[in-house]
Amino acid sequence: MRAIAKVSPAPGLSLTTRPTPSPGPHEVVIQVKATSICGTDAHIYNWDAWSQSRLTLPRTIGHEVCGEVVEVGPAVTLVRRGEFVAAESHLTCGECFQCRTGLAHVCKNYRILGVDLDGSYADYVVLPENVLWKTDPSVLPHIACLQEPLGNAVDAALAEDLTGHTVLITGCGPTGLFAAAVARTAGAATIIASDVSEYRLRLATHVGADHVINAQTHSPEAFAARLQDLTRGEGVDASLEMSGHPAAVHQAFRAVKNGGRVTLFGISSAPVTVDLANEVIFKGLRVYGITGRKLFSTWYRIAGLFKAGLDIRPVVTHTLPLAEFDQGFALVNSGLCGKVVLLP
Amino acid sequence: MRAIAKVSPAPGLSLTTRPTPSPGPHEVVIQVKATSICGTDAHIYNWDAWSQSRLTLPRTIGHEVCGEVVEVGPAVTLVRRGEFVAAESHLTCGECFQCRTGLAHVCKNYRILGVDLDGSYADYVVLPENVLWKTDPSVLPHIACLQEPLGNAVDAALAEDLTGHTVLITGCGPTGLFAAAVARTAGAATIIASDVSEYRLRLATHVGADHVINAQTHSPEAFAARLQDLTRGEGVDASLEMSGHPAAVHQAFRAVKNGGRVTLFGISSAPVTVDLANEVIFKGLRVYGITGRKLFSTWYRIAGLFKAGLDIRPVVTHTLPLAEFDQGFALVNSGLCGKVVLLP
Amino acid sequence: MRAIAKVSPAPGLSLTTRPTPSPGPHEVVIQVKATSICGTDAHIYNWDAWSQSRLTLPRTIGHEVCGEVVEVGPAVTLVRRGEFVAAESHLTCGECFQCRTGLAHVCKNYRILGVDLDGSYADYVVLPENVLWKTDPSVLPHIACLQEPLGNAVDAALAEDLTGHTVLITGCGPTGLFAAAVARTAGAATIIASDVSEYRLRLATHVGADHVINAQTHSPEAFAARLQDLTRGEGVDASLEMSGHPAAVHQAFRAVKNGGRVTLFGISSAPVTVDLANEVIFKGLRVYGITGRKLFSTWYRIAGLFKAGLDIRPVVTHTLPLAEFDQGFALVNSGLCGKVVLLP
Amino acid sequence: MRAIAKVSPAPGLSLTTRPTPSPGPHEVVIQVKATSICGTDAHIYNWDAWSQSRLTLPRTIGHEVCGEVVEVGPAVTLVRRGEFVAAESHLTCGECFQCRTGLAHVCKNYRILGVDLDGSYADYVVLPENVLWKTDPSVLPHIACLQEPLGNAVDAALAEDLTGHTVLITGCGPTGLFAAAVARTAGAATIIASDVSEYRLRLATHVGADHVINAQTHSPEAFAARLQDLTRGEGVDASLEMSGHPAAVHQAFRAVKNGGRVTLFGISSAPVTVDLANEVIFKGLRVYGITGRKLFSTWYRIAGLFKAGLDIRPVVTHTLPLAEFDQGFALVNSGLCGKVVLLP
Repeated sequence: MRAIAKVSPAPGLSLTTRPTPSPGPHEVVIQVKATSICGTDAHIYNWDAWSQSRLTLPRTIGHEVCGEVVEVGPAVTLVRRGEFVAAESHLTCGECFQCRTGLAHVCKNYRILGVDLDGSYADYVVLPENVLWKTDPSVLPHIACLQEPLGNAVDAALAEDLTGHTVLITGCGPTGLFAAAVARTAGAATIIASDVSEYRLRLATHVGADHVINAQTHSPEAFAARLQDLTRGEGVDASLEMSGHPAAVHQAFRAVKNGGRVTLFGISSAPVTVDLANEVIFKGLRVYGITGRKLFSTWYRIAGLFKAGLDIRPVVTHTLPLAEFDQGFALVNSGLCGKVVLLP
Repeated sequence: MRAIAKVSPAPGLSLTTRPTPSPGPHEVVIQVKATSICGTDAHIYNWDAWSQSRLTLPRTIGHEVCGEVVEVGPAVTLVRRGEFVAAESHLTCGECFQCRTGLAHVCKNYRILGVDLDGSYADYVVLPENVLWKTDPSVLPHIACLQEPLGNAVDAALAEDLTGHTVLITGCGPTGLFAAAVARTAGAATIIASDVSEYRLRLATHVGADHVINAQTHSPEAFAARLQDLTRGEGVDASLEMSGHPAAVHQAFRAVKNGGRVTLFGISSAPVTVDLANEVIFKGLRVYGITGRKLFSTWYRIAGLFKAGLDIRPVVTHTLPLAEFDQGFALVNSGLCGKVVLLP
Repeated sequence: MRAIAKVSPAPGLSLTTRPTPSPGPHEVVIQVKATSICGTDAHIYNWDAWSQSRLTLPRTIGHEVCGEVVEVGPAVTLVRRGEFVAAESHLTCGECFQCRTGLAHVCKNYRILGVDLDGSYADYVVLPENVLWKTDPSVLPHIACLQEPLGNAVDAALAEDLTGHTVLITGCGPTGLFAAAVARTAGAATIIASDVSEYRLRLATHVGADHVINAQTHSPEAFAARLQDLTRGEGVDASLEMSGHPAAVHQAFRAVKNGGRVTLFGISSAPVTVDLANEVIFKGLRVYGITGRKLFSTWYRIAGLFKAGLDIRPVVTHTLPLAEFDQGFALVNSGLCGKVVLLP
Repeated sequence: MRAIAKVSPAPGLSLTTRPTPSPGPHEVVIQVKATSICGTDAHIYNWDAWSQSRLTLPRTIGHEVCGEVVEVGPAVTLVRRGEFVAAESHLTCGECFQCRTGLAHVCKNYRILGVDLDGSYADYVVLPENVLWKTDPSVLPHIACLQEPLGNAVDAALAEDLTGHTVLITGCGPTGLFAAAVARTAGAATIIASDVSEYRLRLATHVGADHVINAQTHSPEAFAARLQDLTRGEGVDASLEMSGHPAAVHQAFRAVKNGGRVTLFGISSAPVTVDLANEVIFKGLRVYGITGRKLFSTWYRIAGLFKAGLDIRPVVTHTLPLAEFDQGFALVNSGLCGKVVLLP
């Protein structure tokens, strides 16, 4: 079968041929229908410091995936051949405190598909049955494969109920855009989105942002003033920090009203200097660090959100054949895209 | 001024003439723009046992109201003449445990507008400033006066976050219909509504119910079977019991999945025999008794819901001049209406 | 090996000889060090209607257990030979909505040790590794085997934080007594316990109750009056209903202040007629149905409570050799005991 | 009457004579029985930059107080002459979003006793009735006046339920010590306290810390290693950061297990550089900024904690006559004290 793999310790990926995998007792082989590009995949493509320290080569990458079950191991009970599934990308240990208390999304020992084991940029991928998520066949593949990153946005946006609340979303990369769409479906009162890219701010309006602020053309003071103006001086009930940029972290804290909450999801490339007294303590804030997706309550909630009308199609700006992955990564590196989906 | 009052201990109400009220130091006079009929008002109109034991006559009734501030007492700071306001109908004591700990909606000593003091079925009503709620003038009066009963529905529906969840609403009187509309705005996955009236089930579909079940034409077994069918055998995440009918209480408990929650809002005319073991305990449920509205977080949330697109207009089936109140109560007693609004 | 089993469809149990079990791949054989009598065991002993409908004979009973791991299946990774363990008695399916979302304590398909499969009233018991709970060897066996029912009490008592709160516990059977001990360790302000047995009220004072009320010698009015007196007219913050008696259910609801919460744990022999309006709705209560123990957060919490000084020794009124089980059940049926522990 | 006031813009305070105050309509005059020294008072005494920018002179300072009601204004209903009271030090506006939604502890416009109006370092102090807290006369004055700072510790410690949980408290100033005592009463499993002062670590053991770590004699690595050792490699469930020291902030984040929570209470003199990705996000933490005390649920809880046996006496290391305030501030500046109480 075809597989897109990192074969040598250098930027780029290679189209390789690998044997089609066979399932172990509790494993399943999935014929990949769609698999999308995450920032993590771009880090590996670009071969940054983190990738160099983490990956053992050769490694087929990719972890956002949906497909059809084509072979099941002898002990498998959760799925059947022919079913349409997506997959949780975190393979959790099942034995640590976190796994045994309903907190498997922060398992101490989890392995990541496409990083610690061969991933989904291939015609077939083998997975343990317990990470599979049966998906309604009416969900199209280029949407179904996005449930994994969408789950991040769901947990970030809905750390507390957003219904009737005002929200600032700093950062309109794909997860920030997903969060805006979720906030819209959840009945947020007012959604304000910020980014440095006009391209992405335009996408934000397509998924439901009521107002956008360009963080490059607004000084911090002008940003804060606009935010106060849009909220009649109250500030927002919730900030979702989806960018990792230090300036955005400060905007997120500054924007939220006393007694409100801030979700931190975006990963900064370096530590951030925070005025804890004025940005967190005196405001009486709740701050949520969000990573991964809750297993599997977030996945159930995604299914419910789709029924409620959640529409993430505007975020999918490009679909490409799997073999054109180089073009996909070029798009991701340019920033002039939403989500890029590869179709084997 | 004109005032609709109970003047003698018998069914019916009278159109009377009263002196226009003057405000005390912390009080405000409101020129009533719209005032609507609540079930409580109908109880008083019909002069049931509860009314007979509670009211001192004569009493101008009515507690769902909006209007314009036309006179303010000398110590008033929260509102100004000319502002458009609605009103919380519960005048709380401010001194009990509940009032001092953010639970004023269950104040031990609250008085009710139009029950314990003269109400809003009049050209003018006098109110303490601290129950007033400034309302955006773009909200039309026949909607603005409904914020009080809408608040009940908001607290009933959003006792926990509904986004992405399935919900059963038993009882499609006005508050049940409001709850359906709130659930729709909140991004509920699937909304199932039940009632014994086809008229009201039709209204339920107009405010967003995905499915309706006629509780009169379905036996308890058929009801439960239909519910399981609509939820693929899982049951609902949340039941909102808005009717007070014993059969509906059982349907609400039976419908909800293990680990789910039930809101009890509807008032039964008599105690209900509940199989606590099988209906509550073995299911591991959370049950919320809901009364009144949270002061004033629910009111803020209503403002946010309106911004999010909450549309309760289909619930307002009739608007009448104040003087035609008898026709209004006839409609309410017939059940062939949603909300009936009186316009002075 | 010896095993106490129900062998014929009639009251009583028999001391039988069975082959010592061998473990399957993910199973473990435990040498039983202590195993205690639960109300469920007494129902089976007495051969009530529920037992007759549920059990397939012959069946070794018992599900509250601790012991030493003496043999492990080839795939076992969680425990090693020689370790001291207790066991969760609910064997959950791992596949239902509840199991996949951290709510395994209300699994739709769970099987119970000693009911649906052979239990712990024996020299050895075989168990799947994933229900085992490694226990600090400093916890003595007659205490360690009680972690299972103690877990019920922990979840009932700590449905919400009790620290600094006043609490009424209706019913001083073993689980009610455990709940009193947990409330004491949790820093409850005032613990009021009620029962119809002076023997058990005395035990309640030994585990930390500040005040006791005999529900047999107090009329409902006298009970309520005493409760109001003890709480200076405020009512309690939390009621824990641990008896299942209808009168106690009403006392629990009546005692709690507006905005408080009620835990329902005790199982009534018949449905209970509840004045939902006055007992739940107008008070704005939260009601929690509690069953089982959270897997495994409750077990971790038990370990923490022991470190915090939780002392449940006064509840263990009798320890008997396993072979003297008939005397144990006579004690349980008499009500003149706390917990009865059998030692193989 | 005597009053300790800042009369000139320089370090120190002066013993002055002022007219005994009279109450306004909703005000009360309190004869001060005890009043204690807070870090804020020391900032004013030392005349730091914050004090210089905030205070208008002359100003009688002091805001931790208890005493006897000796005169009440004509409109007062909450207290009577002769009652023993303490006082919430934050005078909230009652009109902002926060005040109207049960979040008055983060009121946008609050004024502080002894900072924005004359305070309690005097024979008498005048206060609005709605900040008074009736205190059981069995609570001795040098304890009763400490309820205000104790409330900070209660909200910091009990942001989530601590019962059965392990906790790290970084910083053993008076509020950290109070938090340790609260954690002990709340049934924390293990309490680990850190500070740079052996004097204060000794106090920590007196209020219930199980283990102490000297943060000066332990390198960050040795601190983390000791923490992991004390928690068997799991980390703590909760960290309470009570010092404001950047190193302690990092220790607090580093110590907590994945999925745990961190309370931030200590005020840093400068912004802190935080590795948000590794310290908050990837751990999936909840972070609570805590300031003030919840009005008045925290005060009710304090009363409950005293009933539960909370003993803060070891924290009160010094009591002095009011006139010896200079010695009190010298003690506070030395760090060789717990809480210092002044007695008029």
